[in-house]
Amino acid sequence: MARIGKLVVVGVGLIGGSFALALKQARAVGRVVGVGRSAANIYRAQELKIIDAAGAFDRATFGDAELVLLAVPVGQMRDVMRAIAPLVGEKTVVTDAGSTKEDVVALARRELKRSLARFVPGHPIAGTEKSGAEAAFPELYRDRKVVLTPLAGTAPRAKALVKRAWEACGASVFELSPREHDAVLATVSHLPHVLAYALVDQVARSRDAKRLFSYAAGGFRDFTRIASSHPEMWRDICLANRKALVAELGRYQGELERVKRMLARGDGKALEALFAGARDARDRWLKNRE
Amino acid sequence: MARIGKLVVVGVGLIGGSFALALKQARAVGRVVGVGRSAANIYRAQELKIIDAAGAFDRATFGDAELVLLAVPVGQMRDVMRAIAPLVGEKTVVTDAGSTKEDVVALARRELKRSLARFVPGHPIAGTEKSGAEAAFPELYRDRKVVLTPLAGTAPRAKALVKRAWEACGASVFELSPREHDAVLATVSHLPHVLAYALVDQVARSRDAKRLFSYAAGGFRDFTRIASSHPEMWRDICLANRKALVAELGRYQGELERVKRMLARGDGKALEALFAGARDARDRWLKNRE
Repeated sequence: MARIGKLVVVGVGLIGGSFALALKQARAVGRVVGVGRSAANIYRAQELKIIDAAGAFDRATFGDAELVLLAVPVGQMRDVMRAIAPLVGEKTVVTDAGSTKEDVVALARRELKRSLARFVPGHPIAGTEKSGAEAAFPELYRDRKVVLTPLAGTAPRAKALVKRAWEACGASVFELSPREHDAVLATVSHLPHVLAYALVDQVARSRDAKRLFSYAAGGFRDFTRIASSHPEMWRDICLANRKALVAELGRYQGELERVKRMLARGDGKALEALFAGARDARDRWLKNRE
Repeated sequence: MARIGKLVVVGVGLIGGSFALALKQARAVGRVVGVGRSAANIYRAQELKIIDAAGAFDRATFGDAELVLLAVPVGQMRDVMRAIAPLVGEKTVVTDAGSTKEDVVALARRELKRSLARFVPGHPIAGTEKSGAEAAFPELYRDRKVVLTPLAGTAPRAKALVKRAWEACGASVFELSPREHDAVLATVSHLPHVLAYALVDQVARSRDAKRLFSYAAGGFRDFTRIASSHPEMWRDICLANRKALVAELGRYQGELERVKRMLARGDGKALEALFAGARDARDRWLKNRE
């Protein structure tokens, strides 16, 4: 791809840091400047050569940026957009990596004003339970999906630049409406996170928590891996997408009630059918992913 | 350990097969005979040198066995016990690997009769979502826990033999009462399995299942790994332990209701506290496991 002259990453954690590393590895970027609220993290990102320099919320950092990636928890998005709106240059393209899109799009409409046409809302569907610059690695986006949710007025040039950047990271780029995006992610990502956090909380609050944990094994470990995710980030995601999430949680409660009734009446046939159907669906999914 | 002369494994799948392989690797067993309802699986177990010979429910197979491991789904345990009760020798020690213990103990009391004192109920807390002889491997029990739930009348010699065998597989052996075992496992194993199956079922039964699955990523994959587990085995576990499982499921429903209320009232502080508490508890658990 045509090289990005200067990239500014706001929030140099797992997501933002991995984006910078992937573009560097692909030789698709010239200079990377990092901005963040934790000085220690930005310093570490420089040490790890994720960024070439530390920037600030000023004209020198943003004025000549070709691309700006906002990779902060959704709850900080408003303040960050408000801060950069008067600073970005006339050609600067801005994108984000927020896990929810309806709220980010609404914020962008309010805050970005004159640069709105060069804002491309996005969400890389990739991650680990780790956070911070330390956790970043260049292969994070390889063979992963990135969803863009462009607006009617998004400049084609801006969309094309963001698409090429993600492709240079090894990802495939898809488009959804913000609402579609949020509904899909509520089911396959936000709900499982809440369920995993809830199970660990239940065990941790038990009277015999210590003994319970001592007999937890590999199944428990993998089921709850996502409960080691960043609490602040997941608070923001849950709040931002709470309407869709509450609806999915309601459906799941209905599902559990159904299973509980099968258990209560000792209906082995129904339980086995549900388990077998779920296993087959999952195995088909895994096969299609390969 | 003193070598086991002849081991008979009833059900040469992941659990039974891995036990045989581990004992062979530790040179802790002479001859291994496998018995199972699937001729194809027993044939494969021979090919893979998991067992030295195929046996049958007859005196020749069981009469001179030093140790018999029952590694069949809990729902088949009664028939298997009834079949072997008149066949085992006067010195044969019998153990099982059933995932629930109150029901297995109750069955043993009814079915094993004269050999009850030489029956040692057990449960290796190890496994993968795979099944069949093909899935067996000798390291499955390394650094894992095995729970024995001996009865008041269990012969010390029998218990010691089973304990040494599991230790030769690399496991640590603990004792619980059958009731304690079932309550602990309901929380840390049976409940997460049901929750994972239920989530996959919910996605699979959605109108837009195909699209939902297409955006599912690594978090979903790990959360649902245990939903690829053996449906018949898990049907049996759920039925055998349904009282404790229904109670745990009820507690979990309360937990979800609490989370849903936090979401509904937009209580970010409470959500973050729950998420952070869960993450800390999980991270402490992982650290203690090392």
